[in-house]
Amino acid sequence: MLANDIDAILVTGSGMHNPAMVYLTGGGHFNGDYIKKRGLPACLFVWPMERDEAAKSGLEVRSYTDYPFHRLLVQAGGDRAQASAMQYSRMLADMNISNGRLALYGISDLSQSFAVFSNLQQLLPGLSLAPLQDSDLIETARLTKDDGEVERIRKIGKVTTQVVGNTADFLTGHSVKNGVLVKRNDSPLTIGDVKSRINLWLAELGAENPEGTIFSIGRDAGVPHSAGNPNDLLRTGQSIVFDIYPCEQGGGYFYDFTRTWCLANASDEIQAVYEQVLSVYNTVLEELEAGKDFSIYQKRVCDLFAAMGHATPLTNPGTLEGYVHGLGHGIGLDIHERPMSGSKASAHETLIPGAVITIEPGLYYPEKGYGVRLEDSAWIRPDGKFEILAEYPLDLVLPMKAS
Amino acid sequence: MLANDIDAILVTGSGMHNPAMVYLTGGGHFNGDYIKKRGLPACLFVWPMERDEAAKSGLEVRSYTDYPFHRLLVQAGGDRAQASAMQYSRMLADMNISNGRLALYGISDLSQSFAVFSNLQQLLPGLSLAPLQDSDLIETARLTKDDGEVERIRKIGKVTTQVVGNTADFLTGHSVKNGVLVKRNDSPLTIGDVKSRINLWLAELGAENPEGTIFSIGRDAGVPHSAGNPNDLLRTGQSIVFDIYPCEQGGGYFYDFTRTWCLANASDEIQAVYEQVLSVYNTVLEELEAGKDFSIYQKRVCDLFAAMGHATPLTNPGTLEGYVHGLGHGIGLDIHERPMSGSKASAHETLIPGAVITIEPGLYYPEKGYGVRLEDSAWIRPDGKFEILAEYPLDLVLPMKAS
Repeated sequence: MLANDIDAILVTGSGMHNPAMVYLTGGGHFNGDYIKKRGLPACLFVWPMERDEAAKSGLEVRSYTDYPFHRLLVQAGGDRAQASAMQYSRMLADMNISNGRLALYGISDLSQSFAVFSNLQQLLPGLSLAPLQDSDLIETARLTKDDGEVERIRKIGKVTTQVVGNTADFLTGHSVKNGVLVKRNDSPLTIGDVKSRINLWLAELGAENPEGTIFSIGRDAGVPHSAGNPNDLLRTGQSIVFDIYPCEQGGGYFYDFTRTWCLANASDEIQAVYEQVLSVYNTVLEELEAGKDFSIYQKRVCDLFAAMGHATPLTNPGTLEGYVHGLGHGIGLDIHERPMSGSKASAHETLIPGAVITIEPGLYYPEKGYGVRLEDSAWIRPDGKFEILAEYPLDLVLPMKAS
Repeated sequence: MLANDIDAILVTGSGMHNPAMVYLTGGGHFNGDYIKKRGLPACLFVWPMERDEAAKSGLEVRSYTDYPFHRLLVQAGGDRAQASAMQYSRMLADMNISNGRLALYGISDLSQSFAVFSNLQQLLPGLSLAPLQDSDLIETARLTKDDGEVERIRKIGKVTTQVVGNTADFLTGHSVKNGVLVKRNDSPLTIGDVKSRINLWLAELGAENPEGTIFSIGRDAGVPHSAGNPNDLLRTGQSIVFDIYPCEQGGGYFYDFTRTWCLANASDEIQAVYEQVLSVYNTVLEELEAGKDFSIYQKRVCDLFAAMGHATPLTNPGTLEGYVHGLGHGIGLDIHERPMSGSKASAHETLIPGAVITIEPGLYYPEKGYGVRLEDSAWIRPDGKFEILAEYPLDLVLPMKAS
């Protein structure tokens, strides 16, 4: 906190799906405010009915009922945001926080939180809720993972590859009629059917996918974040982009993984583009060096793809064909966190040992009806080696079992 | 917008698990900004790789690449929040929004959004991002559900009661040894086992539980939001509070439901307290009148429980025993929305026709090792009747099948 010139921290919101809160409290079934003054122990404010869940954090737990909202609401003339701001000002006062710099965190509803904290800033002019500059305290702490965190990511990685393996088995076990996968009753298999299975396998293995799963075929596979149309059929020979990013149940650590598959066979064109993506993937994985800027490798990948004749963000900013996104990003309690490589990266986001990052080159040709992406998540080990946390074959073509 | 003196709306964040964004766009696999000036069509700003997902909203889709972040970051001297604010100011300018009142919405990370919008306020002094007063535009729109929304809530309600039925079947199918439910291999059944099944059944039926599930026994059942210890055993005769609040896959409409069960038998004391909760539940459901303030019934329930000798928030503010929470709350795209009945309610939150609310009286005695809560979700129909959207028996004791 010293290094960042921060005098106090306030994290608001749920103990689930709220990275800063989960990071600092361990998470749980509560909605609260974590408040810490520099050099003093933190407190967690919650409603009494969540006191036991909050107490699992090991922190001192205090109750909102000591700051009766109803009375504050009357004093504030019925203005809820003002009443909440008054409640915060009292909670902060009781923690001896009245001046200096207060850093705000937490996933929250902007319609309430912006109003509340703007009002709080007015109530406490001596306290600066001023925007943080680039180097953020908790973000920096979260950047490097300790052994326990790496093991949790590795575990959710194994869940991921197990579900991916189940999906491959499930798909290749179907019969094919006129180029379409069909069920036993001869009705066509849909992407919706496949996604239902994926959700089921994730639930069985104790994971969830709060942000969905990308399983898209044909033209949709050519648009990186198209999630896939549930009514689309599974056709042989078309490229399927399967990007799966589950997290631990309740909103813990994420994994991020992509394979591109063609069922039964691939056209020469898709095969050739796949081999280009694979070669770039292998080249960059070999070249990555801990301590270097992530953006160096984004540039390197752009250069490699450009040399193969593809458009890239460097040669054609805003291109919708060719290589159209960043090389990767950190993962952890968020699916996208520091370090970043692409267009939202800061000047120097280094591949610091302890970080876990994705490497995900891809090529996209929506108008030609295909896209290819390969992605693994790698831990930058203390010895500087990049270790993929859940290995899985990179094959493009999945032969059908029945044929 | 006129009634609220709002000149423009900005909703930021994901198309999933983000109520205001889902409400206005239909949701989808994108991260973006929905911006609308009064009287003009809305635009949805996204990255190009999410353009197809965004286009499903039927809105005009624009690209962030028209506002190159990298260049703005350089201009802002590397200050990301300032660069984002500059990006917003340009997007707003392109939509002819430069003065008047801009209402902010969206689930977002406060560490970024408070900084960005504070900076934006400085950049555009003619535009007021001032806190909204109590009557909030989108909140008010979301308060009443149309037929399509009610059907979606009814459907997730049916999923809920089906999972609850599965859970009852699953539990009562076990053998009992020394008062503990055991599996076929004689090892004890745990709450963790039960929750895994619940997650599986929810996934099978196309639902998810992003905020978890409360399945707590004994003392934990006496603390309303204790989620239950995964290692706890299922003991006959103890009260189990099973509070389940799933939503449609991807973050759509929620349902909210609670039953209290005793396996095999209940002590006279738990049975008596259960009957008190049941009688209050029945009384209040009979007395509810559309158009009245929800808080009237909170007071009524406090009076009823107080007359039975229990502490309540009215007689003992902050009590941890007796009746310790509010009677209910609205549900919809959020699990807790307007109208509210309890300590966070505004002066007049009425039971407006079209709203869907929970009714959930309970009594809690953690030191005596039990708690009882009964909860259903009811639609306030246009004719003023309160219709429970998913019926399920209210029984306390679940007889074991094997005995």
